[in-house]
Amino acid sequence: MKKAVVLLSGGLDSAVTFYIAKKDYECHALVFDYGQRSACEITFAERIASAASSACQVLKISLPWKGSVLLDKTADVPSGAISASGEIPSTYVPARNLIFMSFAVSFAEAIGAEAVFIGAHQLDFSNYPDCREDFFESFKETVRTGTKSGAEGHAVRVITPVLDMTKNEIIRTGIELGVPFQYTWSCYEGGKFPCGKCESCLLRAKGFADAGKIDPFENTGE
Amino acid sequence: MKKAVVLLSGGLDSAVTFYIAKKDYECHALVFDYGQRSACEITFAERIASAASSACQVLKISLPWKGSVLLDKTADVPSGAISASGEIPSTYVPARNLIFMSFAVSFAEAIGAEAVFIGAHQLDFSNYPDCREDFFESFKETVRTGTKSGAEGHAVRVITPVLDMTKNEIIRTGIELGVPFQYTWSCYEGGKFPCGKCESCLLRAKGFADAGKIDPFENTGE
Repeated sequence: MKKAVVLLSGGLDSAVTFYIAKKDYECHALVFDYGQRSACEITFAERIASAASSACQVLKISLPWKGSVLLDKTADVPSGAISASGEIPSTYVPARNLIFMSFAVSFAEAIGAEAVFIGAHQLDFSNYPDCREDFFESFKETVRTGTKSGAEGHAVRVITPVLDMTKNEIIRTGIELGVPFQYTWSCYEGGKFPCGKCESCLLRAKGFADAGKIDPFENTGE
Repeated sequence: MKKAVVLLSGGLDSAVTFYIAKKDYECHALVFDYGQRSACEITFAERIASAASSACQVLKISLPWKGSVLLDKTADVPSGAISASGEIPSTYVPARNLIFMSFAVSFAEAIGAEAVFIGAHQLDFSNYPDCREDFFESFKETVRTGTKSGAEGHAVRVITPVLDMTKNEIIRTGIELGVPFQYTWSCYEGGKFPCGKCESCLLRAKGFADAGKIDPFENTGE
């Protein structure tokens, strides 16, 4: 079976992406411990991989320059509203997906995987520039030009299956595929329960409401 | 003074790049400890930054999937000849410059730096795809599309001042700028002295010979 590297963040978008990928690929999950304030994300990501009996690599990286409220526990995470269109929120982490995808491509080349999957989506989301189609299209060209697999004519493929889905559609797709949503965490804050107020919690709640489903959330076990 | 992040590898190309950058920028050196077999590179990179009284950030990252003889001390580094044209040698590290540049862009955005510098060059070198112009051109577009600075119309600039220089020209430029070449290390192997046989040693020796200069190399102090 052909191999793929799948980025898992602990959130539901990447969990659904993982279940889409595993229909066709032997999946190698890649999870980043990058100093995020909600470090329980890592445990949730490992649960998703474990539930699917897939290999899971947790990689610790450091972004000592911070530049995001997600990396600075003394800063406040914005709460109470979803960002206005066009506004990049303070939860943006400089070049995060670029870094994550670069490691994923490295991993893929080293193990002979054909593809990398990422659960970014550009609808119903926080205006992050590194979740938009033009970024991924450009990144594909960067992989074609700047890697051995690209030079040899079989560039690692970059696959974004939920990019144009709404949160509602992602949740419905996940339900069809049997994604254990209880093993996902969306809140930007740490703690035992999601805060329910940050943008990521609001988008998740809206997604489940729009899908007409109850969020089967479990607490972190802390 | 405007700021720049400069990748320092410990080698002479990045040292010359650093001296070019510091003519116009307040330089923040970024060095990677990525499990390379010649870990003394890191010390040499720090010496270059220190000699110029510049800030230097050493970042430890892990590439546990290896995929390169530079990451595997049990493997042999090819020796005795410079790679044939078009052949990507076993010293290629999957997506290395992509990862390094991604971190550099993140660092630059976080500290408000305008540019990142990298000392890649595509002549007299090992056919690494991530040292070629088309990779850097594509990467610039990826930064424009996938980062906050790009979305705001002031994308972090990616500058490759020695890309089209021969090793000879790089060395001559470095001599003009007063680069302390004794604080650079090119050998792929670790140890007290360069092996003199690996491709990187051969390219360095050829560069100094072509420039009509003596290599002022110092040992690692091990």
